[in-house]
Order: sequence, then structure tokens, then C-alpha cells
Amino acid sequence: MSVNLLQGAQEAGTMNSIKLLQGFKEASTFEKYALVVVIVVALLGLIYAAFLARQILREPEGNDKMKHIAKAIRTGGNAYLKRQFRTIILLIVVLAVFIFFTGYFGGETTKSEYGNPKWLIGLGRGGGFLMGALFSATVGYIGMNMAMQGNVRVAEASRSSFTKALKIAYRSGTITGMLTDGLGLLGGTIIFLIFFRDAPLVLIGFGFGATLIALFMRVGGGIYTKSADVGADLVGKVEKGIPEDDPRNAAVIADQVGDNVGDCAGMAADIFESYEVTIVAALILGVLLSEATGHLYWIIFPLLVRAAGVLSSIISTYSVRALREGENAMNAIHRGYLLAAAISIISFGLFAHFYCKDLRFFYATSVGVALAIAIQFLTDYYTSTERGPVKETAKSTKTGAATTILSGLGIGYESTVMAILAIAVSIALSAAIWRHGGMGVDTILYTFYGVALCGIGQLTLTGNNIAMDSFGPIVDNANGIGEMCKLEPEARQTLADLDAVGNTTKAVTKGIAIASAVLAAVALFAAFYEDYGLTAINLIKWQVFVCFLIGGAIPFMFSALTIRAVGRGAYFIVNEVRYQFAHVKGVWEGTVDPDYGKVVSICTAAAQKELITPALLAIISPIVIGFLFGLEALAGFLAGVILVGQLLAVFMATAGGAWDNAKKTIEDGLYGGKGSEAHKASVVGDTVGDPLKDTAGPALNPLIKVINLVAVLAASMMVVGVNHVPREKTAGIWALIVVGILAIMVSVWFSKRAESFGREEGEEAEKAKEA
Amino acid sequence: MSVNLLQGAQEAGTMNSIKLLQGFKEASTFEKYALVVVIVVALLGLIYAAFLARQILREPEGNDKMKHIAKAIRTGGNAYLKRQFRTIILLIVVLAVFIFFTGYFGGETTKSEYGNPKWLIGLGRGGGFLMGALFSATVGYIGMNMAMQGNVRVAEASRSSFTKALKIAYRSGTITGMLTDGLGLLGGTIIFLIFFRDAPLVLIGFGFGATLIALFMRVGGGIYTKSADVGADLVGKVEKGIPEDDPRNAAVIADQVGDNVGDCAGMAADIFESYEVTIVAALILGVLLSEATGHLYWIIFPLLVRAAGVLSSIISTYSVRALREGENAMNAIHRGYLLAAAISIISFGLFAHFYCKDLRFFYATSVGVALAIAIQFLTDYYTSTERGPVKETAKSTKTGAATTILSGLGIGYESTVMAILAIAVSIALSAAIWRHGGMGVDTILYTFYGVALCGIGQLTLTGNNIAMDSFGPIVDNANGIGEMCKLEPEARQTLADLDAVGNTTKAVTKGIAIASAVLAAVALFAAFYEDYGLTAINLIKWQVFVCFLIGGAIPFMFSALTIRAVGRGAYFIVNEVRYQFAHVKGVWEGTVDPDYGKVVSICTAAAQKELITPALLAIISPIVIGFLFGLEALAGFLAGVILVGQLLAVFMATAGGAWDNAKKTIEDGLYGGKGSEAHKASVVGDTVGDPLKDTAGPALNPLIKVINLVAVLAASMMVVGVNHVPREKTAGIWALIVVGILAIMVSVWFSKRAESFGREEGEEAEKAKEA
Repeated sequence: MSVNLLQGAQEAGTMNSIKLLQGFKEASTFEKYALVVVIVVALLGLIYAAFLARQILREPEGNDKMKHIAKAIRTGGNAYLKRQFRTIILLIVVLAVFIFFTGYFGGETTKSEYGNPKWLIGLGRGGGFLMGALFSATVGYIGMNMAMQGNVRVAEASRSSFTKALKIAYRSGTITGMLTDGLGLLGGTIIFLIFFRDAPLVLIGFGFGATLIALFMRVGGGIYTKSADVGADLVGKVEKGIPEDDPRNAAVIADQVGDNVGDCAGMAADIFESYEVTIVAALILGVLLSEATGHLYWIIFPLLVRAAGVLSSIISTYSVRALREGENAMNAIHRGYLLAAAISIISFGLFAHFYCKDLRFFYATSVGVALAIAIQFLTDYYTSTERGPVKETAKSTKTGAATTILSGLGIGYESTVMAILAIAVSIALSAAIWRHGGMGVDTILYTFYGVALCGIGQLTLTGNNIAMDSFGPIVDNANGIGEMCKLEPEARQTLADLDAVGNTTKAVTKGIAIASAVLAAVALFAAFYEDYGLTAINLIKWQVFVCFLIGGAIPFMFSALTIRAVGRGAYFIVNEVRYQFAHVKGVWEGTVDPDYGKVVSICTAAAQKELITPALLAIISPIVIGFLFGLEALAGFLAGVILVGQLLAVFMATAGGAWDNAKKTIEDGLYGGKGSEAHKASVVGDTVGDPLKDTAGPALNPLIKVINLVAVLAASMMVVGVNHVPREKTAGIWALIVVGILAIMVSVWFSKRAESFGREEGEEAEKAKEA
Repeated sequence: MSVNLLQGAQEAGTMNSIKLLQGFKEASTFEKYALVVVIVVALLGLIYAAFLARQILREPEGNDKMKHIAKAIRTGGNAYLKRQFRTIILLIVVLAVFIFFTGYFGGETTKSEYGNPKWLIGLGRGGGFLMGALFSATVGYIGMNMAMQGNVRVAEASRSSFTKALKIAYRSGTITGMLTDGLGLLGGTIIFLIFFRDAPLVLIGFGFGATLIALFMRVGGGIYTKSADVGADLVGKVEKGIPEDDPRNAAVIADQVGDNVGDCAGMAADIFESYEVTIVAALILGVLLSEATGHLYWIIFPLLVRAAGVLSSIISTYSVRALREGENAMNAIHRGYLLAAAISIISFGLFAHFYCKDLRFFYATSVGVALAIAIQFLTDYYTSTERGPVKETAKSTKTGAATTILSGLGIGYESTVMAILAIAVSIALSAAIWRHGGMGVDTILYTFYGVALCGIGQLTLTGNNIAMDSFGPIVDNANGIGEMCKLEPEARQTLADLDAVGNTTKAVTKGIAIASAVLAAVALFAAFYEDYGLTAINLIKWQVFVCFLIGGAIPFMFSALTIRAVGRGAYFIVNEVRYQFAHVKGVWEGTVDPDYGKVVSICTAAAQKELITPALLAIISPIVIGFLFGLEALAGFLAGVILVGQLLAVFMATAGGAWDNAKKTIEDGLYGGKGSEAHKASVVGDTVGDPLKDTAGPALNPLIKVINLVAVLAASMMVVGVNHVPREKTAGIWALIVVGILAIMVSVWFSKRAESFGREEGEEAEKAKEA
């Protein structure tokens, strides 16, 4: 591990000359124009986002009380993000250096195609990592802030017009969507233009930056939002029997903030990285194919598809509006989605036919669009209040909480089977379309390029998806503001209607994000295989099998950590809210505002503290496995992570959604409505589902990809010799392995030390109060 | 598929002569004696079981009321088993024919070593299948009956002496244990003696027979016991607030019967097949190694280890007794276990040193014993009332049912990670011990032979394990009889103490059974690989990866089906018990006995109906996958099943155990004791855990192996050509695939059609009652 860096750099410098922007020499005239068009479209997407933002900010914010509450939410949200970024900045810098070295020490494996020096590849990769992290954080930050500007304006608009409220809510969400689209396309394309055939070496850093931030935002935001939500509910709804958004509850603002940091910032960063990683995977495989075949379209086609997606999102999102007052908002949103899908599919066909002259490109991307639609259908079936499963869960509340939980477990287990079958069929179709390969190239390369195209196709309509998703927390917050400010009944009804639609759109996007994670991970998995010239990932080797078993355990460990983190966070909040009710005069009577800020800072601190262990697990485990057992075993590990991660993620999302909506149907009056025994059972189901569907489940999504990307990045350091197993483990490598294992163990131990759902502090606090 | 059978048989008959009992020509004098000793020890085990049975049957049965109740339980249990056997007998016969053909059409792959004709191999395999099924059923049937004879005698003995009650309970359980040991060793050894190097071809049928019966007994018994338990609790404890074993509850006898059919018959058949399948796997790999190296000890050593295990179980189980009145029963049982472990390990060392002259045999089997101890430790840590996890779950009841459930989920997820790490380490150690192989043989063969030895070692003390496990339902039933017959307080205390110990022993055995399932499955997986001469199980092939994803989905689907089946069963019982309370005069007042038999027959019918779909899924899915995608993809499928099956099984067992024991600590007076809000929350946790830990979880154990064995059996029919992918799918094969997929779909659809936890029948029945 000890290498004279300077000397290496000098050697590299003397031996190689720097060659950048090689692309334009190789590309045809059409391709040059195409690349320019792609950049222009990406910029158009950003301009459209800015245009929408101006439009939204011009809308009125309502009365002083509304402004006051909105400001409290904004302050909380931004305080959290600031703290979050401060917590991780050091790690990001350390990792950037590490990533520079992964590029630098790539040895055989990170060979530049143009003889660019190693330090340049290292710098590009490290810089790409920082850019990815910055873009992902920006999407999260701006997206969340636009949502927090939008929500109060939606509440105000609801007092005059349903149409207008819908438009503001949807367009506020669209800003995040278009930022994702624009920055995602811009980042990937720029790196590609600069480094051209060397781009995969750099893009992997870019993807990792985006993914890592997404992991932090998802885990931190998820712990924040559900600690606040569960904590607020346990004291408010369960103990005191007051409504959900009652302003006397000190956790109520933290709950609103949580919706933004979890569902807006977390989800936006998450989908941004899915969007990024699918293109990274496609470009890595595309570069290999273009080298082998001499055609550039393997690389350009995915970029064109993305550009078409951005354009269709611009057109279709702007077209979303209610045709008449009181039309179901879902219909308007669906119309926009279908319009976008139609535009995209037609352009896929045109590109494939006229540019690639190979309709397999069209088929593979269309399979992706079909998968997105299938996932929407499945999510809708398992979580819609109109369908069998939720109705069954709702009925099961009549025999109590236990049967409610069991019913949700059954539905969740079944739904994850269906989702993985849909994904398996998509992968099989994509691979089958490309199974004949061609031009003497390894068929594996073709089949997994097909899978990457499927992933690209599936995320074509990201602009629309994120718009739909952000719509959820915006109208949720608007509804909360409406309740706290006691708006007029008609406005409240409008907001409640929009909120119900928001729940559906959120669930749908979650399903699509998870499916895209698997496709991206599978394509990365193949990229890993190709990059390091593995000859097989042979499960019958004991090292591979053992690591495969360990890989499968990771998502369970991760889920255990995040679920318990929410428990611990909620417990702190319960204690604080109880304390304020009991000891701060006037809070319970409603004459004095509770100290919202206190709860906000408890949530913020808890989320920061709790995200360390899961993040360490994700980053360190593939490194330890790779150095201990070699690359082939590491690939087995990745396969285990992908399989179990996907199964758990969909199970959690669906079971949580089913419990949530079962509760909603009962609150709408079924089986005795609010206050009945059935309602109590349904609240138990919903509370169990909360950390599953909003913390553990969605965080598995970036987890899968962080682990994959760490593997791809670190693999270059693990390769010693041709048989892809470190032949001799030096003292340095053993030290790394031991330190890695210790770091995970110590961190898990610390995180376990504090029990989750029942520490003595609670009892002491209670006793103190009683005394 | 159309072959002239008669002609084939004639050809085979003329070309080959029948050669059986070849073993004695090849074996050394020592080995001949060793084989005779093994047979004698197996018979000794059976004689010991008969001796214990006579001893138990001589004990007094107590007063008339006790006899009456015991008889009702016996009648219910036997009625269930009779119905169960009747349901599956047709399937068994059809499968025996199918299995004959798998042997017959083996083609290249089921080549006899001695030139035995194909029809003889087919007959041996089909016959082995029937023998395996018969043995497994016998162990279940006799084991359950001895438990049902023992329970009432334990109750009677508790009135005079704790020591005596413990002895009767433990020895009743030991009968099942020794039956398993004796029949398991006898069956495997006899087949080996007759067919010698051809034995693997036949043993696979024997293992499948045992496993299939175990699957039926586990699924059927699990659905029965938890439908009765959940149904009885929902009306009794939850609705009416009467104690658990109140004789007015019409489901109370069905609940007792359920303990026997689920925990005795189901568990006995299940461990019998684990015991069998590990030896089958070891012998298959051992035969290959002995062919390659010329030594027979690869085959004889595992048989000797088993014989040593049987002997040490005989000695140690007979030594189990309380040293003084009132000693903790767990101590006595542990002393016996340690004694057995010591005898076994010493004999492993002696055999390895003096016979094999290779200490690796000793190390590998000792790793197995260490794994058994590690699993015991882990199970104890996560489910004992004295340790952190259960205490945490108990505390979490104070904030309600939702936090209770979340706490259990977190603990379950964490425990499954630890268990799979323990298994991964064992596999790695076993493989590392054999990593240098030797004598020019494929190292893979050695490493997985090491894994098989580890499995053999882990199940050495099966006699003791089953004795401990059966002890659980015996004292549980004795306690129930004590409550129903209102025995003296001292007797009740004795029985309650024994019952608490029984809960721990049950949990421990469950953990060991699941770990053994994985080791057996991994060894079978390797046997599959070796048998069909696969060159790799390469995950990067899309077919392998897609089937791997589908394989991971199977345990989730299976769990969803079984959990919902319990829901449906419980619902029928709730309605019946409610009806009897409301409409049969004197039942609620306690003056008239409720119609226990009615509930027993509802449970029996429900269990039969519900086990069809999960069983079809297990049998058909590997066949469809294999024919569609070929053998390598089928191996990927198996890997997915093993990984996810193991993770879910331990999660369910531990989470269920933690909830159960959290409830127990609260019933012992913690946090307000019985009737408090904390207690209500803990009952919800326990009820959720019931179908997980006693139905879905344990049934995953035989599921994993049924799927593996079907794959091994059917593979010989899938091999067409050397590349192990059916080159042309004939109309017949397509028909098979389509029929298979349709059968699963139709069956799942039918099973889903009836919702699980909330059908209208319930409402109608309620309305009818109200009217």
C-alpha cells in the first residue's frame, strides 16, 4: 500500500499526455449535433424549473398565522439540512481523497483508453464524486425549499379555487422533478464529453457521490420524519386523544418538517441517484460495446432517450391542470403521465429506427416503460383503498390489532413476490431481446446492456414521477397548515382531497424507485463483472457462497438498525411532548404555543446520530468482504444484497401503505369510524407501518446502490494478480480488514446499547413528573 | 417423452446384470464390522424407544376427568393424522411413479456404477421414496401418540413428585428422539448396504420421501395448531376475558390437539428428514470422493458418527433426572446434553485418528457441534426472558401494541443476521479445513463434503434435541389438563415450571433444525452440481440471475400463503366458538360441555385444504424453472430459496419467541401484570408471533429441502445434451411447463379468493346471532 505518489505522478506525466474531449473527433456529424442538443435540453429543463419557481413565488402566502407556521416549518427543515450537511462534509472530503486513490491505483483495471495519466483519472473520479454529491444535495435542498414555499401557497389557493391549488401543488413538485432531470442529464453528459471513452472511470465517482448523499438523506430524513410522526402520534392521538395536527402538540411542527426532509429532500436525492446510476451503468456497458463494435450509438442512444424524457416531462407537466373545478386530481396527473409516455415511446422508436437502425433499442427501453406501468398497477392494487387487499386489512381490524398486523404482513409478502416477478420478467425480456448479441462480442455484455436500457426506459418519466411524489408532502403540509390555521370548511375539503391523492402518488413513486434500484444494481453488477474481467461469478465456490449468505443478511441488519433508530428517536420526543403538556403552563389549555423548536432540534440531533451506523455498514462491508475473499466472492455478496434488499424494500413499502390506507378507510367511517375499536387496531397497523414504509424500506434503495458502487470503486484496489483474489494479504490489508470489522462492530454495539422502545429515561422522566 | 418402456427394460435387462450388496466385496474387515455395528446400534436405538414406551405406559393416567380429556385429545390428534395421510396418499403414489421414472430416465446422469439395470435404480429410488415417507410418517405418528400418552401421566405424576413428572415428560419425548435416530440410521445404512456405490441414486428418493411428509406435517400441523390457538385466544382471552385453557371455550381441546400435531408430529417428521437429508448429502459426496480416492472411509465415517450419536443419546437421555425435588428442569436436561456432546466428540476424534487417519474429519464434525452450541446460545440470547432483547420488547409494551411489534421486528431481523453469520462462518470453516483437498480431486467436492460433515456433526445429538423438543408440547398439554381438571395448587406450580422450561427447549430445537436445513441444502446444492457435471453456477448469466430472483421470492410467497391460511382457519373457529357461547345453552354458564369435536373437525378440514397450495408451489416451481431455463438456472433458483428461506425462518422463529416470552414476563407481574394495558399490547405481539413462529417459519425448513430434492430428482429428466440446457423443448415439455404454471396460479387464486382475516361470513354469522 505504500507507494511514492509523487514519483508515480511524474512517471505517469512523462509517459502519457493529457487527452480530453476526444469525443468530437470520433463522433459523426449527427452525433455531434445530438450531443449539443442533449446539453441544450438539459439546460432547458433547468430553465423550466427556474421559470416554475418564479411563478410559484409570486403566489400569495396567506394570512400572518399561515406565514408564521410556514416559516417555522422552513426554519426547521433548513436547520436540519444544514446540520446534516455539516455532519457529512468531513466524510465526503475523506472519501473524495479515497476515491482519487481508487482511480489512481486502478492499475490494470482503470486503464485509460487514451493514455490519460492516472492522476487525471483519479482527479476526474474524485471531482465527479464531489459533483455528484453536490448535485444530489442541491436537488434535495432546492426541492425541499420549493416544497416548503409551495405548501402554504397551496393552502392559501385552496380558499379560492381547487384548480389553482392543484396547479400550484403540482408545479412546486415539478420544480424538483425538472432539477433532477436537468442536473442528472447535464452531469452525465458533461463527464462523457470531457472524458469520452474514459468516462466510465469517472462516472462511477459521480454516481457514487449522488448515491451516498441519497443514502444519508434517506436514512437521516427517514429517521427524522418517523421519529417525529410516531412520537407525535403516541402522545397526541394515543395518550391524549387529540387530533393529528393539533397545534398544542409540541411535535406537530417537527412532524411537518419531517414530511419535507423525508419525503421531499430524501426522495428527490434518492431518485436523482437512481436516474444517475442507470445512465452510469448504461454508459459503462455502452463504452465497452462501442469499443468492441466501433459504433458510438451504444453511448449516444441512452443520452438521447434521456433528453427525450426531459422534453416530454416539460411538455406534459405544464399541461397538468384540472379540466373543471373539483375534478379528481389523479385524473389530471394521469393525463400528463400518459402524454409523456406517448411522446417518449414514439421518440425511442424514431431514434432506434433512424439512428441505431436496430429496433432492439426500442424494444428494450419500451420494456422499461412497461415495467414502470406494471409497478404502478401493482402498487395501486396492493395499496389502493378500492381494492381487495386494503379492504381485507380494513376488515381484519375488527378482530383487533394482531389480525391487522398479520393481514398486512401477508399482503406485503405477496406484493414483494409480484414485484420481483415483474422485475425478473423485465430482465428476462431485456436479456432475451439481446440474447443473440452480434459482432462477435461477449453476449453477457449485450444482455446486461439490455437491462441497463430497460432501467433507462423505466426512469424516462422521472420528471413526472418526482413531480407526483413531491406533490404528496406539499399537499400533506398544506393540509396540516389548513388544520392549524383553522381555514374555511371548503378549503379544508379541497386540501383533504388533494392529500388523499398525494398518498397514492407517493406510494406509486416509491415502487418505481425501488424497481429502478434493482435494475441499476443489476446493470452495475454486470459492469463490475466486465470491468474486472471476471470469468464467472460461480456460486459453487465456497467463498462466493459464504459471501452471498452474508450479503443477504445486510438488508436485514440495516432494517433492524433503522427501525430501532426510529424507536429511540420517537421515545425522546414522547418524553419532551409529555413534559411540555405537564409542566409548561398553558400548553395543554391552548393559551400558550408549545416550544416547537425544542422538538425540532431533538429530531435533528437524533437523525444525525442514528445515521452513522447504517452508513458505515453500507460503506465498509463490501470493502472488508472484497479484501478478505476476493472479487468473485464480492460479486456473490452483491447478489445477496440485491435480492434481499429488493424483497424487503417492496414488502415494507406495500405493507406500510396497506396499513395506512386501511386506517384511512376506517377514518372515513367504515366499521365504526374514528374512535371505534377497529380504528384503534388500524392505528396500530399504521404506526407499525410508518418506519417500515418511510424509513427502513426506502433507505434500502440507496443502500443497494451504495454497496454496489463501493464495490466497483474499491475493486481496483483489491485486484492483485490475474486470478482476482489478493494473492498475499499484506499487513496493511489485514489492518484494513480488522479495522473495518471493528468499526462496524463498535458502531452496532453503540447503537444497540441504547434500547429502542423502552428505556429507563422514560420511566424516570415520568416519575419526575409525577413527583 | 414417449419411450417404449418395455423395450427399454428388456434392453436394460439383457445388457446389465443385477448387482446388489457389492459393498462387502470392497470393504475392509474393519469396515464390514463397522457396518454391522452401525445396524446394531440403530436397532438398539429402536429397542430403547420401545423400552421407554413400555415404561411410560405403565404409569397411572389419573382420575376419570383426566382420562376423559386425554382421550379427547388423542381422538382429535389421530383423527387429524388419519385424515392427513388419506389426503396425501394419492399424491405419494403418483409421485412414487414419477420418481421411478426419474431414476429410469436418468440417462447419462443416473448411471449405475455396477451396471445395474435402469429399472432397478428406478425401483430402488421409488421404493426408497416410499420407505422415507413411511418412516417419516411413523416417527410423526408414534411420536405424537407417545406424547399424548405421556401428557396426562405427567399431570398425574405432578400431584406426587416433581422429579417423577420431569422424568416421564422427558422420557416420553425421548421415545420420538430415539425413533428418529434409529429409523434414520437404519434406513440410510440399509440402502447403502444394498446399493453401495449406487446408493446415492436411491438415497435421494429416500430423503425426498421423508422431506415431503415433513413438509405436509409441518404445514398442515402448523395451520391446525395456530388456527386453533389464535381462534381460541381471539374469542376466549380477547373478547370474553376468560383464561387460556378455560373448559367452556369450545376451541380448547383443538388447541391442545394442535400442540401435538404441530409441535410433536410436525417437528418430529421435520427433524427426521433433516437427519436423513444430511446423511444423504454426505453419502452422495462421499461416494464421489471414495470413487476418486479409492478409500471407503468417506462413506463409512458419517455412518459411524451417526452411530456414535445414537449411543451417546441412549446413555445421556437415560441419565436425565432431577438431582433433588424442585431443581430447575433445564439444568437436568443440559447435563444430559453436555454428556452426549462429550461422548460424541471423543468418538469423532477416535474414528478420525485411528480409522480415517485424517483429523480433518474430526475438525469438520466438531465445527458442526460448535454450530449447534452457537445456535443454542443465540436463540437463548434473543428469546430468553432474562436477556436484553426480550426485556426491551417487554418494556416497549408500555407504549402500546405498535411499539411492541416494531421492537419484535427489530429483534427478529437482528437475530436472523447473527444466525446466518454463524452458519456462514461454519461453512467457511468446514470448507477451509478441506480447502487443500488432495489426491487430485476437484476441491469443490472436498469443501462441500466438509459442509456435509458439519451438518452431520450438528445433528449428532438429534436424540437429545427431539427429546427436548417433544418435552415442550407434552408439558404444555399436561399443564392444560391440569388447568381443565383443576388439580392441586402444588401440582399446578410443578406443571407451570415445566411448561416454562418447555418453551425454551422448543425454541432452541427450532433454531438447530433451521440451521441444519441450510447446511443440508448447501450440501445437496453441491451434490446437484457434482451429479450433473455443471462447470459453474454463474450468476452473471441472465437466466441464472433471473431464476435466482424468482427463487428468493418463493419463501415470501410461501409465508404469505401459510400466514393467510392461519387467518382463514382462525376465522372459522372464532365463528364456531362464538356460536356455541351464544346459542348452545349452558356452555357459557359452564353447566354443559361445549362441542369440542366440532372445532376439532373444523381445524382438521381447514388444515387439509390449506396445505395444498404451499405444497404445490414447493413441488412444481423447481420443475418449471428447470425445464424452462435449464440446470444452471435451476441452481441459481435453489440458491435464492436457501438464502431467503433461512433469513425468513430465523426471523420468524425469534421474533415469535421474543413476543411470546415478553408476554410471559408481563404475566409474571411486570408493568402491571395480567389485565394491564401493557399486557394487552403483549398479547397482540404474541398473537402476531404465533403463525410466524409455529406455522410459516418452521415450514420453511422442509420447504427449502423439498425444493432442493425435487431439483435433484427432476434434473435427470431435464438434461438433454451436454450443455445442460434442454436444446429443444418438445411439445410435451412445453405442456408440462404450461400445466405447472397454471396449476400454481389456479391454486394460489383459489387460496386467495377467500380473504384471510375478515370475510363477510363472519359478519353474517354475527348478524344471525344478533337476530
